[in-house]
Amino acid sequence: MSLQNPVFIPGPTNIPERLRHAMNVPTQDHRAPDFSDTFLPVLADAKKVFDTEEGEVILFTSSGTGGWEAAITNTLSPGDKVLIARYGMFSHRWIDMCQRHGLDVEVIECPWGTGAPADQFQDILSADTEHKIKALLVTHNETATGVLSDIGAVRRAMDSAEHPALLFVDGVSSIASVPFKMDEWGVDIAVAGSQKGFMLATGMAVLAVSQKALGAMEQAKLPRTYFDFRDMLTANAKGGFPYTPPLNLIYGLRESLKMLFEEGLENVYARHHRLAEGVRQAVSAWGFWGFELCAKSPDLYSETVSAIFVPEGFDSNVLVEHAFNKYGISFGVGLGEMNGKAFRIGHLGSLTEVMVLSGIATIEMAMADLDYPITLGQGVAAAQEYYRKN
Amino acid sequence: MSLQNPVFIPGPTNIPERLRHAMNVPTQDHRAPDFSDTFLPVLADAKKVFDTEEGEVILFTSSGTGGWEAAITNTLSPGDKVLIARYGMFSHRWIDMCQRHGLDVEVIECPWGTGAPADQFQDILSADTEHKIKALLVTHNETATGVLSDIGAVRRAMDSAEHPALLFVDGVSSIASVPFKMDEWGVDIAVAGSQKGFMLATGMAVLAVSQKALGAMEQAKLPRTYFDFRDMLTANAKGGFPYTPPLNLIYGLRESLKMLFEEGLENVYARHHRLAEGVRQAVSAWGFWGFELCAKSPDLYSETVSAIFVPEGFDSNVLVEHAFNKYGISFGVGLGEMNGKAFRIGHLGSLTEVMVLSGIATIEMAMADLDYPITLGQGVAAAQEYYRKN
Amino acid sequence: MSLQNPVFIPGPTNIPERLRHAMNVPTQDHRAPDFSDTFLPVLADAKKVFDTEEGEVILFTSSGTGGWEAAITNTLSPGDKVLIARYGMFSHRWIDMCQRHGLDVEVIECPWGTGAPADQFQDILSADTEHKIKALLVTHNETATGVLSDIGAVRRAMDSAEHPALLFVDGVSSIASVPFKMDEWGVDIAVAGSQKGFMLATGMAVLAVSQKALGAMEQAKLPRTYFDFRDMLTANAKGGFPYTPPLNLIYGLRESLKMLFEEGLENVYARHHRLAEGVRQAVSAWGFWGFELCAKSPDLYSETVSAIFVPEGFDSNVLVEHAFNKYGISFGVGLGEMNGKAFRIGHLGSLTEVMVLSGIATIEMAMADLDYPITLGQGVAAAQEYYRKN
Amino acid sequence: MSLQNPVFIPGPTNIPERLRHAMNVPTQDHRAPDFSDTFLPVLADAKKVFDTEEGEVILFTSSGTGGWEAAITNTLSPGDKVLIARYGMFSHRWIDMCQRHGLDVEVIECPWGTGAPADQFQDILSADTEHKIKALLVTHNETATGVLSDIGAVRRAMDSAEHPALLFVDGVSSIASVPFKMDEWGVDIAVAGSQKGFMLATGMAVLAVSQKALGAMEQAKLPRTYFDFRDMLTANAKGGFPYTPPLNLIYGLRESLKMLFEEGLENVYARHHRLAEGVRQAVSAWGFWGFELCAKSPDLYSETVSAIFVPEGFDSNVLVEHAFNKYGISFGVGLGEMNGKAFRIGHLGSLTEVMVLSGIATIEMAMADLDYPITLGQGVAAAQEYYRKN
Repeated sequence: MSLQNPVFIPGPTNIPERLRHAMNVPTQDHRAPDFSDTFLPVLADAKKVFDTEEGEVILFTSSGTGGWEAAITNTLSPGDKVLIARYGMFSHRWIDMCQRHGLDVEVIECPWGTGAPADQFQDILSADTEHKIKALLVTHNETATGVLSDIGAVRRAMDSAEHPALLFVDGVSSIASVPFKMDEWGVDIAVAGSQKGFMLATGMAVLAVSQKALGAMEQAKLPRTYFDFRDMLTANAKGGFPYTPPLNLIYGLRESLKMLFEEGLENVYARHHRLAEGVRQAVSAWGFWGFELCAKSPDLYSETVSAIFVPEGFDSNVLVEHAFNKYGISFGVGLGEMNGKAFRIGHLGSLTEVMVLSGIATIEMAMADLDYPITLGQGVAAAQEYYRKN
Repeated sequence: MSLQNPVFIPGPTNIPERLRHAMNVPTQDHRAPDFSDTFLPVLADAKKVFDTEEGEVILFTSSGTGGWEAAITNTLSPGDKVLIARYGMFSHRWIDMCQRHGLDVEVIECPWGTGAPADQFQDILSADTEHKIKALLVTHNETATGVLSDIGAVRRAMDSAEHPALLFVDGVSSIASVPFKMDEWGVDIAVAGSQKGFMLATGMAVLAVSQKALGAMEQAKLPRTYFDFRDMLTANAKGGFPYTPPLNLIYGLRESLKMLFEEGLENVYARHHRLAEGVRQAVSAWGFWGFELCAKSPDLYSETVSAIFVPEGFDSNVLVEHAFNKYGISFGVGLGEMNGKAFRIGHLGSLTEVMVLSGIATIEMAMADLDYPITLGQGVAAAQEYYRKN
Repeated sequence: MSLQNPVFIPGPTNIPERLRHAMNVPTQDHRAPDFSDTFLPVLADAKKVFDTEEGEVILFTSSGTGGWEAAITNTLSPGDKVLIARYGMFSHRWIDMCQRHGLDVEVIECPWGTGAPADQFQDILSADTEHKIKALLVTHNETATGVLSDIGAVRRAMDSAEHPALLFVDGVSSIASVPFKMDEWGVDIAVAGSQKGFMLATGMAVLAVSQKALGAMEQAKLPRTYFDFRDMLTANAKGGFPYTPPLNLIYGLRESLKMLFEEGLENVYARHHRLAEGVRQAVSAWGFWGFELCAKSPDLYSETVSAIFVPEGFDSNVLVEHAFNKYGISFGVGLGEMNGKAFRIGHLGSLTEVMVLSGIATIEMAMADLDYPITLGQGVAAAQEYYRKN
Repeated sequence: MSLQNPVFIPGPTNIPERLRHAMNVPTQDHRAPDFSDTFLPVLADAKKVFDTEEGEVILFTSSGTGGWEAAITNTLSPGDKVLIARYGMFSHRWIDMCQRHGLDVEVIECPWGTGAPADQFQDILSADTEHKIKALLVTHNETATGVLSDIGAVRRAMDSAEHPALLFVDGVSSIASVPFKMDEWGVDIAVAGSQKGFMLATGMAVLAVSQKALGAMEQAKLPRTYFDFRDMLTANAKGGFPYTPPLNLIYGLRESLKMLFEEGLENVYARHHRLAEGVRQAVSAWGFWGFELCAKSPDLYSETVSAIFVPEGFDSNVLVEHAFNKYGISFGVGLGEMNGKAFRIGHLGSLTEVMVLSGIATIEMAMADLDYPITLGQGVAAAQEYYRKN
């Protein structure tokens, strides 16, 4: 693969120059007096991306999956009941994790391409008059299907049911790319990752935890040490880390936050919408030939990744592999039940219209090579038209 | 702190130029066909550093602490009995982790400055005729005290007791810096970290796991997902990772292994011994004034870190802080019960005699500034004399 | 400008990752015994790019302009007659330089868009029976017009005229991107630059000098010190440099040569042709609306840059500026008499089809924004069609 | 050589992290509208380092030698008389350059180890009643001998002689490290280089030119194009460069100036003095054994480099080579008539006490290895004592 080409996977995302430099730091002493001067403002500033004032930001050296595990082990006990809707690969994996940790998982099965079913949540929570359900776990942006769920609606459902369950949100592929309103939505734990909207290398989970979730911490019986919020909060309070911190990612996050604030979070979100919409215009132009977004309706469209069904009779895996081998460019394969039937274009993080157009143009070439019934340039033209007018 | 000065903490260590570059990679697709071409040889080559043929190497995005947690959660069940000797901060922390995970920990209390008590292990294991003890956990190099324990002796004790317990070794601050013989010593899980002998940034635990430990995996009841060996081995078998891998650290480890093999592991170990001995010569020269190594006898001397008691009446924390503030150079503080009484000089990873001498010369200045009764240049001269002759 | 987007100027070119790293070296001692181990093989290997065995490669810390000055001051004396054809900005500037150095310049005026006039050269040289013309100076690739001249034909003209003049070639924007045959063509001095086909930062002129040119060195009366071949050759013979060398660029050139040889020079040339032809296909598709290549015939088409006339009534400077301001991407403006009438797309160095398509797509958007009569996607489709078939 | 060790040559100097990053820029378009926003403030800010308000700063892609050549070719004509004192290798080379350019050079021979002879200058200038001498060329810091001359005294000599000659100063190894007062001293052209006090890679000459020198520009008959001030000033006035600029060095200089101003120029100069004095204290401690500074009196001591005679009977080249081969550290050899008799310790640019001590300790080891009659640690102790008290 040519290192010069951008990637179009839904994370890890293209790392901008500034962040490449910011992460490339010589070794420093994390126990030195000046470490907290660097570290504590990062924690404080990161709250803005979650739009929380009351929550605490906690960083773990791990992928987003580790962040999920921290969320459940720090707040729940074996046998606790949790409610989760399965509508894609990542919600599926979260269900699996809860089951492995001995939780009693009530699963709502939803068609892939749909999002969090606020109505069903409300019904179930209303029926749970004994409040056995301790937590509701929701995937904000389902990376597998390109669906963004409405967390505000979930909160309204919980409020309508007057249910005290904790609300955990997997925002790995949404936070820092689309609006996230932790306090307004009453989210108790939100999990993000360094390698998506923060545009950094993989390796750090970024969590925001509400006071309510922290309140559940002491009673939680699931065993944990590495991911224990208590050790982390105690160390953070002194400006440190309970073990060797991922210094390069902390420096990277500091610079990432600067970049996000310089561009302005609203502008970052608007850029993601614009780039995503260009991709969707291309998909729409190809639609005549049988291409289709996996997300079932416009209100579910993800601004960070589009999952696209290929026409019947074609294998999307072959398409992705061909694009990689012949043109040196990476798109996402279809995951789970969509494997072979859909491919994905990631359009989050540090991207420009120029870069997105190169992705659209390239996948068109790959399609033509494989005798897909498309007209070269058609999707590009649709995206060009959109980009130049917006 | 001046970024130009080396650090003398016992990790994270100074990152050499080559590894700075190797970790500074643009984003690549970990699901692309070429990822396994990079990844699998790294796993294979890393075995050589553990000196194992039968073990499997497993990488986690975490600090070494996460690696420990993986070791116990993948092999043990709640209530299982384990045996650990406490002779420093890191053995102490491992005990704490086991207790938090509901294990039944038999602790042998040893004076700090001593190492793994093979004789006591043998007595206890011999007495455990029902084989209730499932695992023996040993810290190879106790970073807090600068003590390197004899793992071969531990194995011989286990063999003499004819005890089937698993043997887990924390080699975070020893592996890749001093000889480690996993197969010969019958180690079942060895835990290393990217930021020590591998000279990389912090963020990846490197484990080697014996077939015997893998055999315990299916029966182990401690809950885990993020650190589950099973997911990892399944994914690795296909050349992949169960979640987004720490690409920059994997590329870094590839280059780190190249560097280690180019220098030759034996030469790497010899260099560590030479650098350490120079530091010890300096300490010996200062000894007249009351300085003393924490390690109680030469057979326990660590080649990667020296913990040094300062004379009575002096506060070692003030010394370390002064060296940092005035000269911009980091030494390790005394940990745990040695806090305020000792400081530590890390001498592992990418270091040269030239760099070590700058550390010795600087701490001497700091000592003189604080009215320690030393003669400037005395420790330096002792180290110079040793280095130039060896 | 977004640092994430590629540049489409005809140099400096996009620097690939490997060369970014290669140039990013800590300070080293150029007088140390190991410098020559690095330096001399670079000089030897660079000859292959010029396709010379008898020539010497000489490096100067300067732009290509400095390389030209070195060519004339090391071989000529005030009042010497030289012959140059003016068919673009760079041949124009070489004429000016010769005049400022007191040379007697015979200029052949050619229309821009044409190349080196071998026939006229032959006539003039044949008529110069007294051999007053000491040197013929030819621009191989005229960056202003996107014209590549036939140096072999120039040599045949000289041979037919049986004229002993030296032949100097400005290959700044051709060498390492298109075939160059110094020995076969009897070139006496060829001038290249680090920032074009070598894909490095700007700052080093790379010259190849024939034995015949070296023979003229001692008699040459034009004053020079910094650019004196004699000092350079004396120092090089000892493995050194007459003054502080540009270490980062020498390390960069070493790696650049490795990259070129790994890809294979023939493949590098073929890639340049393919990328260039895609751009020309796009221009051809736009041709209906009045766009036209400046190069007057296919045999003159440059593989490294295309200069493209915009339709009557449009200002190409506005187009280039708009593309930069709105889309963050750089194209070349028209130079000299083409300013305002043409723009240029650089397609040399480290480029892929993916990147070139992003450039074509973007300039189309800019055209549409400025009411150029084009159909979005048309040029892209033409290039896509070509790239996927070749 | 270990890339981890600092260099102790008098340039190129150790490049600090920030400048490594600043120079590591992707390609950008130097003709884009935003280039002048970067470039022009750099020119303006650089004036502060020369302490000039009326002078113009001019940058050339070249080493310092190219800067010298620019100084003479832009102001003088063949046959013009210039006055130069030879007291080291660099003044010697400047004389040679003038002679090669056909100037009439009046040379004052001075013993190496002395500096600019203001009295003799005054006598000669006073005697030159016809003002045939057009320029006086002075090396501020003679890198070969470690001598810093008093330019203020030279100016006073010129003023006393009421002589209108131009005053050119080679400040390559002094500017940005020791005070330089262009306007106060009436310097007409000062030449600096990127790779010394500016702490950058080699490759850019930084000149400051007085209005008086610019006034001589049009009449100067020495031929030049690459180094022509006129092209440069015309291009600079429009925010550009007459040919492709060394973008990475311009970005580097921007950051270098920021670093210098953040530390404060006075503090930078004080640091250089302090580091230099520590080295001199070490030499003084070794003095008992026959080591001696080349500079003949304290008022001549250079703050950027110390040239040190080794005791009779020892070959300083062997010492330097041994230090390099055994300890991987570079010191400067003796140049010219001092070759074999002296070695040099560069102590300029980005250096700390910690780093300097490592150099002193290492050269002591090398001396002991070669049976020099020294006591290990003696020089180190002298430097330690000085550093900790100052």
